[in-house]
Amino acid sequence: MTDRAQMTLFTFLRDTGSHLAGWRHPDAYDGGLHQFAYYKALAQTAERGKLDAIFLSDTLGFRHIVGKDAYSRLDLCHLEPATLLAALSQATQHIGLVGTLSTTFFEPYHIARLMASLDHISEGRAGWNVVTSLGENEAHNFGLAEHLDHEVRYDRAEEFVGVVKDLWDSWEDDAFEGNKASGRYFDPDKVHALNHRGEHLAVAGPLNIRRPRQGHPVIVQAGSSATGRAFAARHADAIFTIPTNLEAAIAFRAEVFALAAAAGRSEMPRVLPAIHAVVADSEAAALAKYQSLNDLIDPALSVSLLQMLLGGVDLSAHSIDGPLPDDIPQTLTNLTTRQGLIDLARREGLTIRQLAVRASVGRGAMMMAGTAEQVADHMQAWFAAGAADGFMLSQPYLPGGLDDFVDKVIPILQARGLFRTQYEGATLRDSMGLSRPPHRFVADPSRHAEPQIWAPMKQADGPTRS
Amino acid sequence: MTDRAQMTLFTFLRDTGSHLAGWRHPDAYDGGLHQFAYYKALAQTAERGKLDAIFLSDTLGFRHIVGKDAYSRLDLCHLEPATLLAALSQATQHIGLVGTLSTTFFEPYHIARLMASLDHISEGRAGWNVVTSLGENEAHNFGLAEHLDHEVRYDRAEEFVGVVKDLWDSWEDDAFEGNKASGRYFDPDKVHALNHRGEHLAVAGPLNIRRPRQGHPVIVQAGSSATGRAFAARHADAIFTIPTNLEAAIAFRAEVFALAAAAGRSEMPRVLPAIHAVVADSEAAALAKYQSLNDLIDPALSVSLLQMLLGGVDLSAHSIDGPLPDDIPQTLTNLTTRQGLIDLARREGLTIRQLAVRASVGRGAMMMAGTAEQVADHMQAWFAAGAADGFMLSQPYLPGGLDDFVDKVIPILQARGLFRTQYEGATLRDSMGLSRPPHRFVADPSRHAEPQIWAPMKQADGPTRS
Repeated sequence: MTDRAQMTLFTFLRDTGSHLAGWRHPDAYDGGLHQFAYYKALAQTAERGKLDAIFLSDTLGFRHIVGKDAYSRLDLCHLEPATLLAALSQATQHIGLVGTLSTTFFEPYHIARLMASLDHISEGRAGWNVVTSLGENEAHNFGLAEHLDHEVRYDRAEEFVGVVKDLWDSWEDDAFEGNKASGRYFDPDKVHALNHRGEHLAVAGPLNIRRPRQGHPVIVQAGSSATGRAFAARHADAIFTIPTNLEAAIAFRAEVFALAAAAGRSEMPRVLPAIHAVVADSEAAALAKYQSLNDLIDPALSVSLLQMLLGGVDLSAHSIDGPLPDDIPQTLTNLTTRQGLIDLARREGLTIRQLAVRASVGRGAMMMAGTAEQVADHMQAWFAAGAADGFMLSQPYLPGGLDDFVDKVIPILQARGLFRTQYEGATLRDSMGLSRPPHRFVADPSRHAEPQIWAPMKQADGPTRS
Repeated sequence: MTDRAQMTLFTFLRDTGSHLAGWRHPDAYDGGLHQFAYYKALAQTAERGKLDAIFLSDTLGFRHIVGKDAYSRLDLCHLEPATLLAALSQATQHIGLVGTLSTTFFEPYHIARLMASLDHISEGRAGWNVVTSLGENEAHNFGLAEHLDHEVRYDRAEEFVGVVKDLWDSWEDDAFEGNKASGRYFDPDKVHALNHRGEHLAVAGPLNIRRPRQGHPVIVQAGSSATGRAFAARHADAIFTIPTNLEAAIAFRAEVFALAAAAGRSEMPRVLPAIHAVVADSEAAALAKYQSLNDLIDPALSVSLLQMLLGGVDLSAHSIDGPLPDDIPQTLTNLTTRQGLIDLARREGLTIRQLAVRASVGRGAMMMAGTAEQVADHMQAWFAAGAADGFMLSQPYLPGGLDDFVDKVIPILQARGLFRTQYEGATLRDSMGLSRPPHRFVADPSRHAEPQIWAPMKQADGPTRS
């Protein structure tokens, strides 16, 4: 089912690991928040493991959660992804650098620049995780009274990504000449304006950065709703998913491939289910480690997190050791995660307390606890079954969790021929086996528009003011 | 007149130097646009010279200029400042990293994050050059039909900078506890919301990054209009100016100091006039080098630049060897540069061609061509006269111009006790002799507001929707 012999592996980098109580593990980092040296060591570990990319999630504010006291123990501060990845580019040589930037709260000109710069600075290792942002509180940091509706956000995102790709293609690859003798710095016929005027955005262009090294930085997307899947199938080079079982993962991958083919794509995206692995030398030791992490979870905090993931409901009227109530209200945000948790509770008959623990472990994603061989077996089975082109690794605590994975699981995957033993090629696209995108204006000359700046200003046909 | 014994020195880093034809100089860099190694070498040279900071200007698009052909030889592409500086932080250890970000086209939450991240990543070396953006074409990249009026832009900037400072102070310095045993990650009583609702902005806060290493990154500003001076006097730690003579520089500095004192500031900003220096072993050799640069200027291109700096006028009806016409129309943008050039032409009786050459050399700023001793003498004289607390260095071509300055002029300033011989302290504020700002919410407890996220969601007094 897979079209490539080797997996694509990304890994999350977080301040405290993906497990809600991971930071409290005795081996978890405690050297202080926002220490660059910590991230540098993590990125270098990931590169030692020959992973395709490190991945930084992001939010633009806090999300709703109930209760000051519970909240006081959640880690919600993190460095800004573009700057952190730019700095990490100088501590690494090969690994891809994927950062999250929101189409809802940024302007496309800014994202095009941040990502193009990162791609030049890193010599072709940039990736953009496209998010439409989930949180109501994020909207309140950007002058919006209420968050945009899910469909409106995706509608804007669709237009936004097209604009960003066009901006990246403002200059043809060979537009810059730098001819000292003639004084010609660039070829003005190889510059393209957008003059875009859509429903959500108006962007003239051109971008004031030359075309990125990769043509376009790698585009990553994680939307799982119907709208999100269709969006990802059109635009994403890699799709991050949180499936709860093998059958769902196979169906998801088949669906996005069909959608991608229907959209005219010949190169399929890499589908990367999340995997949270606790690795130890025996299964019993791994399970004990997993249990020791879960024992560190404060029930009040995990229920707060569950309430947030369910869309901001208040479960305080219900017994923590009873079932989830039937009347979880519909919300605007996080539709798929919410439904996945509800389904999980129904399927396995979990109490609120039990569901809250599961939500605290990668938000209901697959949690593996086992030996390195067991984890590798699981990954191989999914890969072979057509459920995955690779995985988004997520460690319950850091840095130990990443060390375990790199030192114990990666060598097994390599020995089985499922993962690279050295980096080949220069860019993240090379690592992922993705081609360099054609230049959008060269490919379709009918789209060419002269930049407004060429035009004399005082003539009747001068630059149009909208 | 100066209140410190040693100068503050910043230097511009540009792709091609400040002289319009600098990139054509035989010793100018020609290794290709957007090569990080080039910037890295420049930053390391500046650090070898013990400069306080490197400075990246920025635009968010191209500016109006007349004529496709002339434009084709102007360098207007450059990497995005925050990402470039973050990467440069890993190639340097001491030097400050100052980047330009626009209050007109960014949201304060983004700038607060980018700068706070840069400050953490660089361990306290970040600076923000606050600009309101000059170009009509920049507005067209951000969905605006026309550029905001000068006064409106400054009005927004005033509100914006206050919001950014408040966001930086969302967390008290010791808010994070990370207590594994108790499970308490931070102290919720040391987190402050803004709930800001002003004329231009609505920002709830708190920021999701802990307080920057420097408290607040260094704030730089270059406004020279009356509004700009008043703004800089209130907010700037360093003020970048382009004076055309000593008397004007003394008067400018005295005025902003008076305005700063009137605004209640006890710590005066550092006033940094721009200086463009061509250094050689003899005055004749320096003048010859300067002339050779000017000889590389294409008159059509320099007149195009002049037209842009005058606010987008069309001079094509006038003889290039005649005087500037009297009827240069008023424009919204770049008021001070425009008036400075008009005054320069009138005062020195320059033709359009001659004025265009002067505009091509740092846009009409002071141009020094001489021996290292002559340049140092000039700087010392201005420093002693109270015209400057230091300088914004700008090299006509790179990298040679910066090497010349660091290797020849800096040792003379050091020998005279006018400049440091080693970095002291850890941060850019330390280098500049600036104190760490007090925490705004701790200093004024009446401003404290609980974050909305603390509040339960389903109560009548729940979070307010605007």
